[in-house]
Amino acid sequence: MKNILFAAAFALLAGCTSGSRTPIATETLKSPDGNLEMRFELTEGGAPRYSLDYKGKSTILPSGLGFEFRGEKPQLVFGAEIEKGKDGTPVQFHEGFVMENAERGTFDETWEPVWGEESEIRNHYNELAVTLRQTASDRVMTIRFRLYNDGLGFRYEFPEQKNLQYFVITNELTQFAMAGDHKAFWIPGDYDTQEYDYVESRLSEIRGLMQQAITPNSSQTPFSATGVQTSLQMKTDDGLYINIHEAALEDYSCMHLDLDDRNMVFTSHLTPDVNGYMAYMQTPCHTPWRTVQVSDDAREILSSRLVLNLNDPCAYEDVSWIRPVKYVGVWWEMITGKSSWAYADINSVKLGETDYSKLQPNGIHGANNENVRRYIDFAAEHGFDQVLVEGWNEGWEDWFGFTKDYVFDFVTPYPDFDIKALNDYAHSKGVRLMMHHETSSSVRNYERHLDAAYDLMNKYGYNSVKSGYVGDIIPRGEHHYGQWMVNHYLHALKKAADHKIMVNAHEAVRPTGLCRTYPNLIGNESARGTEYQAFGGTKPHHVTILPFTRLNGGPMDYTPGIFMMDVEKLNPNNKSHVNSTLCNQMALYMTLYSPLQMAADLPEHYEAYMDAFQFIKDVAVDWSESRYLLAEPGDYVVVARKAKESGLWFVGGVTDENRRTLEFPLDFLEKDRTYTAKIYADAADTDYQTNPQAYTIYTKDVTSEDTLSIDCARGGGFAISFE
Amino acid sequence: MKNILFAAAFALLAGCTSGSRTPIATETLKSPDGNLEMRFELTEGGAPRYSLDYKGKSTILPSGLGFEFRGEKPQLVFGAEIEKGKDGTPVQFHEGFVMENAERGTFDETWEPVWGEESEIRNHYNELAVTLRQTASDRVMTIRFRLYNDGLGFRYEFPEQKNLQYFVITNELTQFAMAGDHKAFWIPGDYDTQEYDYVESRLSEIRGLMQQAITPNSSQTPFSATGVQTSLQMKTDDGLYINIHEAALEDYSCMHLDLDDRNMVFTSHLTPDVNGYMAYMQTPCHTPWRTVQVSDDAREILSSRLVLNLNDPCAYEDVSWIRPVKYVGVWWEMITGKSSWAYADINSVKLGETDYSKLQPNGIHGANNENVRRYIDFAAEHGFDQVLVEGWNEGWEDWFGFTKDYVFDFVTPYPDFDIKALNDYAHSKGVRLMMHHETSSSVRNYERHLDAAYDLMNKYGYNSVKSGYVGDIIPRGEHHYGQWMVNHYLHALKKAADHKIMVNAHEAVRPTGLCRTYPNLIGNESARGTEYQAFGGTKPHHVTILPFTRLNGGPMDYTPGIFMMDVEKLNPNNKSHVNSTLCNQMALYMTLYSPLQMAADLPEHYEAYMDAFQFIKDVAVDWSESRYLLAEPGDYVVVARKAKESGLWFVGGVTDENRRTLEFPLDFLEKDRTYTAKIYADAADTDYQTNPQAYTIYTKDVTSEDTLSIDCARGGGFAISFE
Repeated sequence: MKNILFAAAFALLAGCTSGSRTPIATETLKSPDGNLEMRFELTEGGAPRYSLDYKGKSTILPSGLGFEFRGEKPQLVFGAEIEKGKDGTPVQFHEGFVMENAERGTFDETWEPVWGEESEIRNHYNELAVTLRQTASDRVMTIRFRLYNDGLGFRYEFPEQKNLQYFVITNELTQFAMAGDHKAFWIPGDYDTQEYDYVESRLSEIRGLMQQAITPNSSQTPFSATGVQTSLQMKTDDGLYINIHEAALEDYSCMHLDLDDRNMVFTSHLTPDVNGYMAYMQTPCHTPWRTVQVSDDAREILSSRLVLNLNDPCAYEDVSWIRPVKYVGVWWEMITGKSSWAYADINSVKLGETDYSKLQPNGIHGANNENVRRYIDFAAEHGFDQVLVEGWNEGWEDWFGFTKDYVFDFVTPYPDFDIKALNDYAHSKGVRLMMHHETSSSVRNYERHLDAAYDLMNKYGYNSVKSGYVGDIIPRGEHHYGQWMVNHYLHALKKAADHKIMVNAHEAVRPTGLCRTYPNLIGNESARGTEYQAFGGTKPHHVTILPFTRLNGGPMDYTPGIFMMDVEKLNPNNKSHVNSTLCNQMALYMTLYSPLQMAADLPEHYEAYMDAFQFIKDVAVDWSESRYLLAEPGDYVVVARKAKESGLWFVGGVTDENRRTLEFPLDFLEKDRTYTAKIYADAADTDYQTNPQAYTIYTKDVTSEDTLSIDCARGGGFAISFE
Repeated sequence: MKNILFAAAFALLAGCTSGSRTPIATETLKSPDGNLEMRFELTEGGAPRYSLDYKGKSTILPSGLGFEFRGEKPQLVFGAEIEKGKDGTPVQFHEGFVMENAERGTFDETWEPVWGEESEIRNHYNELAVTLRQTASDRVMTIRFRLYNDGLGFRYEFPEQKNLQYFVITNELTQFAMAGDHKAFWIPGDYDTQEYDYVESRLSEIRGLMQQAITPNSSQTPFSATGVQTSLQMKTDDGLYINIHEAALEDYSCMHLDLDDRNMVFTSHLTPDVNGYMAYMQTPCHTPWRTVQVSDDAREILSSRLVLNLNDPCAYEDVSWIRPVKYVGVWWEMITGKSSWAYADINSVKLGETDYSKLQPNGIHGANNENVRRYIDFAAEHGFDQVLVEGWNEGWEDWFGFTKDYVFDFVTPYPDFDIKALNDYAHSKGVRLMMHHETSSSVRNYERHLDAAYDLMNKYGYNSVKSGYVGDIIPRGEHHYGQWMVNHYLHALKKAADHKIMVNAHEAVRPTGLCRTYPNLIGNESARGTEYQAFGGTKPHHVTILPFTRLNGGPMDYTPGIFMMDVEKLNPNNKSHVNSTLCNQMALYMTLYSPLQMAADLPEHYEAYMDAFQFIKDVAVDWSESRYLLAEPGDYVVVARKAKESGLWFVGGVTDENRRTLEFPLDFLEKDRTYTAKIYADAADTDYQTNPQAYTIYTKDVTSEDTLSIDCARGGGFAISFE
């Protein structure tokens, strides 16, 4: 025992990433194609380490694993000694282990997602599960590694055992040691928001760029000068793409990465609860999967389904009520400030006491009967499934900024929103309304009203809801990405499934592939979306990074399709400019995959460009096949997809702030067939800043042998439909 | 403005209780009978003060009023300046006022409680409402004073106004300046428990006695060496009884009292939330009433209905489903350790995953079919309405001490509790089962299951529930008596009313008369109850203090009626002794008024003393009239009550650790009638420690002219039924 302790101390002093000492155990795991090799070892001090090589190159240097638990002091209560959870000395769970067991396996199955970028996904990995016993505490954990051709996933498992039943994690100490000062596409680590513009820099530059990267938000809690969020996309000088994320975040705290920028080692940084603790656990239990996707081809990062594959299969027997949705909505006009969510011009309301029928309407309430009918007509005319309506319900006059508890009841419409008549009208035209539940982050209040809110939806024929969590969380002090809220999002999602309701949760924790298990999670925002184009604008490279980062865990309700780039035209007080060309906006329906796609602009802006709008009408939202043709994070993405229902092919491509010619082969098309490609592209003089709305539409007969070459403007893109 | 500021500063320097300076405004208010006189004034510095005299004697010396608010710094979000609630400089709201208005009124009405100590209560007061404007901030508040013959109530009101909409209270600064070093009957101020033994001491002695007064509890947070809880009972050297409490605690934080023991001034000390803030407010709003009951006759403190009178009238239209309850229960056998709440001998369970049908029962599970039927038989035979069953549901194996979130689902019975069969059996015998919802303080979990839990009760014919909040609150960091939990208790109560369910909430915030407004709140524990007799014992004087303190705001489910004082007889490992004689136990059905009364012991212990048990069978639980005959806090209480239904009279009396002869007139009886008094009294050699179970029963013919004289043993008492 003494020797182990001495060795442990020595190993600790020597530094975490020491690989020179002789380990006391080693196991190796290879991916099915042999390109990836994972090495697991226990150091002399019994500290677990893993490392990863790709085609012989160091990708993850030897990195630590383990935890720190809260020390529990027993307390005398009622004369019985009970572990009461008052802090004692913190308990380490990252060294002093021996290997008890190493179990290997392989798995190869193909499964069909309910919706997705393809109709079939292959789940093929080699597995190594090492069971470790910490001798001093007589506690056991298993670390399960799954090595795919596209990357590594591993998680910690705590079996039911005598010496570990309830425990509190104060720190998870999973490391990802980088082999160099890689280029990274990052946003500041934050317990409450992901709505930052991405920064492209070397790892060593993060510290110096953090301050300016932290732009204002309705709820934000950055935690470190070198803390970043996942999914983190990096590129080495050798041209290797490395992406770190997590999969299956359930009943745990969301992981960020804190960089030691002297040694280029990331350590997991969980999101604390109000008291500073990370996660409350009861064995048997496990953590989410920590994932590392690797390729020397950026397109393979985008086509990797590793995160979905690590999630459990679909939990629902009946999924017939889950269907992708194309929608328009009473939304952008409020985001730009042209109209308001609120009905009346008063400063404060009390639900159930304030008599709205006696209040003076402010005259700019967006969700009024006439306006909603207009959108319904537009949706019906142009083949959209649903119309989102925000600001339909009492409470918007003081919904934000006052930490208000009873802020909405989710069932009482404003006087000028006839919920029955409007739903009847929509249904008569083959359209549904889409529900909106802005919770204002008052989460106890939302949960209290959830059943009634979902019942109302069922009553009036709504089958999908956009939920929101704007502002600091109530219970006050909790964070959007802590275990408490992770638990809530899933609670709301499962309850929605009981009501056959699909959920699109904005400001919720970033997705980690749970939509495989719970496919009624058809969207999240959980990143900087189109609304920010009206809040000052977003960098053009943003949409070339999102597919690598935010979309890694699940689709994003990015709500593209803005045709009027000068927000001033909608609201003279708002000088924002949408940093994108019109064709770039259309390409997003292809490059930002989502089963939920909004044509976000106002009907009149589409009516001014009906020929361009045709693409948005034509584009599918559910796919049997997807091929990433060109991709470079921060620069460009081009993807081809085959519609599941019609079998038609579509292509979309975007560039960043640089002009670019994008050239790609059409070998995804069926051989020996001629297609007519309808190409929507930037015109020669298009520019996202000076001339964003210019475009050209032309057709071209092509076959699978052909190559297309399309010129993109600055902030531009293109969209193609094939017949 | 400058003069006011200067004067304010001067007044502040001079000290809060300065009464010598010339006030800038004065108002006086008298009680209807003129005995109480309240004086309100604004000092030169514009600080509000009040004082109270009783029959010309100083009862409350000039005492401060007011608040401290959290300073709000505006924050730029989305380009708009919003008050976001980040702390700026704290804002004072206790001086710099001018009097805008002083409105007077009087009120005299009699109302009928749904249940109570009497069938009619007179609500008669003189009122003064002063409206104050703080000139520097241009904010307004009204302080409303109601002066009754039995005491004073006052509250703060914040009207809707431009400069005060949402605000956060960091401190309430209500003072109660005592005129001397009074004797007090106190328990340590604590954010989470009231289950302490009372201490009788001078105010100056509190500090030295605090440490030993804080005995261990499953959830406790004392906050000050001189902090005490309300209702606080005091007695001056002049023989004046003063009692401080609050009424109508709704949407606010519970008030304790923090003593400045140099000046003998109490200041209100609210219960903070997890972040240290006291209450989140939105105008128009008001605080609870702060109450000061005064009399030179202790019996008038007990007969005072001031706290109920200050509450709003009954909010329910239909109260036919609310009825007092006498019950027995599967409870004491678990409290003593004879049997267990838990079914199986395992250390940890996961609801929905653990298969109880496969587990080995531990053999001592109290809530099993056979045992419950036994209690049902006993209840039916002896005229009890209901049988409480604790430990009927899955989850008790690890319910406590592990901060477990999903600890109970409130709907799934153990394998040996046939919920349908047992309820059918009970109903066939004219008895109901009483539901038990131990929440383990996992409150989000309880709220998630509340509808299903109440639906289950409706389905099986339960109409009352004992709820519990044992352990630290989840959301972790909240306190039992903070605004968050005060909101929850009322939420659960109102929802229960929707289901026509009565609630008896243990470990909840101490009652403040809300049962007038919500009469389905038929009980709380919220003090040290009978269970502590099995946790080491309680001081004999306890039951002579509770009527003055804990019962001031509402009834207590004290669960008396223990006939077997040596707990060792039930569980050899438990050496506790019930510090009470058998007659004292019976007297408690009279002296501790409650519409909910339990005969808490095991049937076999009653069967051994059936002649004594007869009183418990006979005693009523709902009264048309109550007369406190003798009373001295800490020493003795004797009360006569007339049953509402039968019109029969009963009397009960208790003494503390001293032998005592209690002599009282029977002039409450109807004149010119002879009654047979059946007297259950301590025997000559009875003693709560050495010979608690000895008693004598005898009858005596009496009239209203007679006086009875009864000898009480140490820790003893007596009970009388009249025919």
